[in-house]
Amino acid sequence: MGNIPEGARRVFKGIRYEIYQWPQKMFDGSEATFEMIKRADSVEALVVVGDKILIQEEQQPHVPYPFLSPPGGNVDEGENYEAAMSRELLEETGYAVDSWELFHVKAPLQSMQWNMYVYIGRGGHKVAEPHDDPGERITPRFVSFEELLELVDSGKLYRFEQTLRFMLLRAKYDPVRREELRKRIFG
Amino acid sequence: MGNIPEGARRVFKGIRYEIYQWPQKMFDGSEATFEMIKRADSVEALVVVGDKILIQEEQQPHVPYPFLSPPGGNVDEGENYEAAMSRELLEETGYAVDSWELFHVKAPLQSMQWNMYVYIGRGGHKVAEPHDDPGERITPRFVSFEELLELVDSGKLYRFEQTLRFMLLRAKYDPVRREELRKRIFG
Repeated sequence: MGNIPEGARRVFKGIRYEIYQWPQKMFDGSEATFEMIKRADSVEALVVVGDKILIQEEQQPHVPYPFLSPPGGNVDEGENYEAAMSRELLEETGYAVDSWELFHVKAPLQSMQWNMYVYIGRGGHKVAEPHDDPGERITPRFVSFEELLELVDSGKLYRFEQTLRFMLLRAKYDPVRREELRKRIFG
Repeated sequence: MGNIPEGARRVFKGIRYEIYQWPQKMFDGSEATFEMIKRADSVEALVVVGDKILIQEEQQPHVPYPFLSPPGGNVDEGENYEAAMSRELLEETGYAVDSWELFHVKAPLQSMQWNMYVYIGRGGHKVAEPHDDPGERITPRFVSFEELLELVDSGKLYRFEQTLRFMLLRAKYDPVRREELRKRIFG
């Protein structure tokens, strides 16, 4: 699921996206051309700073309103995934962590070859001034676990990876799941 | 958000996807080429049949396992959205409804021009034999509202539109929300 079959032909390569096509055998024996998108994998993280979580208030030049998002971004060609996460966090916020733990890997869309690696970063601390690229303006914000759950439930924090948001929403309403997830994140 | 700016140039047109590019002014005054995907809008529905909801057990030739999904599909060029929903429901299940109500419209991905129209269909009833296209095998299943909430919470029904799944998950855990949503769906 979410994987382009071997032998598929690349018919377009742009800046962010590539398009692949392949002949697909159908249930009645006939054949049709199927098409799928490939894009860079991305990373994002729940970064723990003391007893808070670091989230970002962000503006982008083609998006009319500021929005909240986790630290993260695209993995460059050949780049190590944890290194990509450290790089994005440092550029966007000036923070580093003591350690990364891979929380899970999900494909946001069945029709796209695109994996999202979700990390938990522990021991977050400031090491430099942030250095936004010209395509973003970012202000770090620090929220408690309860505030994080509230932001997800209210729809204000809708950019986290979907399965994680589902877990945060369940944690909001189910005290047992809440304590499990709190422990999982804060250790 | 989710909309390709006017004046963007189409650089690729495939079978399901088109790619557009445009020069985007950045916060520091520099310019970069931005890229976005366009695809057909899609429709899906909660179809009420008596006191049950119709969902589909589905197989596709390039997907290794059967999965559950709502009735729905892509809107053809120039097609009316309700007509597309009626067409998909009839083809996939042999069912028709007395009336459609538009529940909400959401863009699943910020980086794609793609809107998903979610409907509630009331008075579902069988009018014909289903007529799957060769790219799918579909068996209708009828579940109670409680079973629907359970399927969403367990992760077995993950193909519904995201915001709707969030609402169903909240309904599972919050009795007030559950009765509100039940009333909204069943009238």
